[in-house]
Amino acid sequence: MTDAVRVPAWRARVLTLFPEMFPGPLGHSLAGRALERGDWRLEVMDIRSFALDKHRSVDDTPFGGGPGMVMRPDVVDAALAAAMQPDADMASVGAVSAGPAIYFSPRGRVLDQALVKELVREPGCVMLCGRYEGLDERVIEARGLMEVSLGDFVLSGGEVAALALMDAVVRLIPGVMGAAETLDEESFERGLLEYPHYTRPAVWRGRPVPEVLLSGHHEKINAWRRRQAEDVTRLRRPDLWAAYEKRAEKDKA
Amino acid sequence: MTDAVRVPAWRARVLTLFPEMFPGPLGHSLAGRALERGDWRLEVMDIRSFALDKHRSVDDTPFGGGPGMVMRPDVVDAALAAAMQPDADMASVGAVSAGPAIYFSPRGRVLDQALVKELVREPGCVMLCGRYEGLDERVIEARGLMEVSLGDFVLSGGEVAALALMDAVVRLIPGVMGAAETLDEESFERGLLEYPHYTRPAVWRGRPVPEVLLSGHHEKINAWRRRQAEDVTRLRRPDLWAAYEKRAEKDKA
Repeated sequence: MTDAVRVPAWRARVLTLFPEMFPGPLGHSLAGRALERGDWRLEVMDIRSFALDKHRSVDDTPFGGGPGMVMRPDVVDAALAAAMQPDADMASVGAVSAGPAIYFSPRGRVLDQALVKELVREPGCVMLCGRYEGLDERVIEARGLMEVSLGDFVLSGGEVAALALMDAVVRLIPGVMGAAETLDEESFERGLLEYPHYTRPAVWRGRPVPEVLLSGHHEKINAWRRRQAEDVTRLRRPDLWAAYEKRAEKDKA
Repeated sequence: MTDAVRVPAWRARVLTLFPEMFPGPLGHSLAGRALERGDWRLEVMDIRSFALDKHRSVDDTPFGGGPGMVMRPDVVDAALAAAMQPDADMASVGAVSAGPAIYFSPRGRVLDQALVKELVREPGCVMLCGRYEGLDERVIEARGLMEVSLGDFVLSGGEVAALALMDAVVRLIPGVMGAAETLDEESFERGLLEYPHYTRPAVWRGRPVPEVLLSGHHEKINAWRRRQAEDVTRLRRPDLWAAYEKRAEKDKA
């Protein structure tokens, strides 16, 4: 027997007005089985339970007028104070917080695989899901929230963004991916989009699989796949292609 | 009484190996109430029910070798054939298809609010959720699938992307948004990020609300908000800012 320290599993804490939305899709398939096994933990906290008045109000009208409602700084701050505390498990291995505190907002850093990889290296993260017009700006400042955007579109709240972020992080936790899936050679690993995939039948509706894939010549197959990945990236995502070329040049120098 | 044609509600058809993931979060809050009212419809089809052999297999090993499994072209094509048919409701108003057929893939067009607005103008859309390494390329070509990416990160499957897309579309369907929410002046409407929001108390933990918002001077408030929106966009998203400036210049000319 060893005295190995048990590392607490990656833990997601979600602050939401709709706790019934979780785990939702993450209760099934890979993420769901990993959750059952304890490979990650999900703690959902109802923001409304931190309300301060008997009406349990969480929002109020915006200063300066305009449509919609704004989430109250005092209520959200109380919820964050609770969620950002490490629990006994995490404190036992020296964690001083429950990980980065994220607020989902179109004004945030756009989620990408680099951020996903940063987050999986943390003990966990706290995710605040906004609703209505948004959150009082002063809480964002006071708590130093990391604003994260799922993309340049508008969701009805942060909940679906939280599900997407957790799905992306959880699949990187060691042991979560099954035999049918893999982390090797996947999208964005080398800054390129993926090459096309083919499976049986070799000819489907008059469409044959590219011949090289049937050759058994691994070097040629790898070269072909690499060229395909480069071509599709150049054609569809000039932004990714430019960054890829810049890195390649730097590696040469 | 009028003879007004009843326009069929916007309809989402989802093809997935995990039908139990739906409606998930969209069964609650705004989208959930709208679903109950019939403001939109959600039809979930299990790809496995279109399997052709007694083992109900939906995937096979990739030609050319490599890790993971690829979704079979024949099975997925049969599922798409069924899903892309308009139903009697849609056919009655002249629809010849169930709307664009989308395949979620990191190689796709990155989802943005412009695409969301295109989709809400369609009778609906068909969403194919990939799993494993991906889908045989020949089905994508044969069916002319619109490849859509949620962003530059990797999900365990297309299901969470479908939920995000539906959330974004459904809130734009007339009647879905309640009084507490609004489509006016929202993120990306003018190509700018949003100005900051504030609500009571006027001073929270020593942090006062910007004075102009208490002035009652609407012109000044609007000018301040505009400047804030411009500043945050320039600072955080030079890409959006460049596009905004280009449009502004064009409008002047």
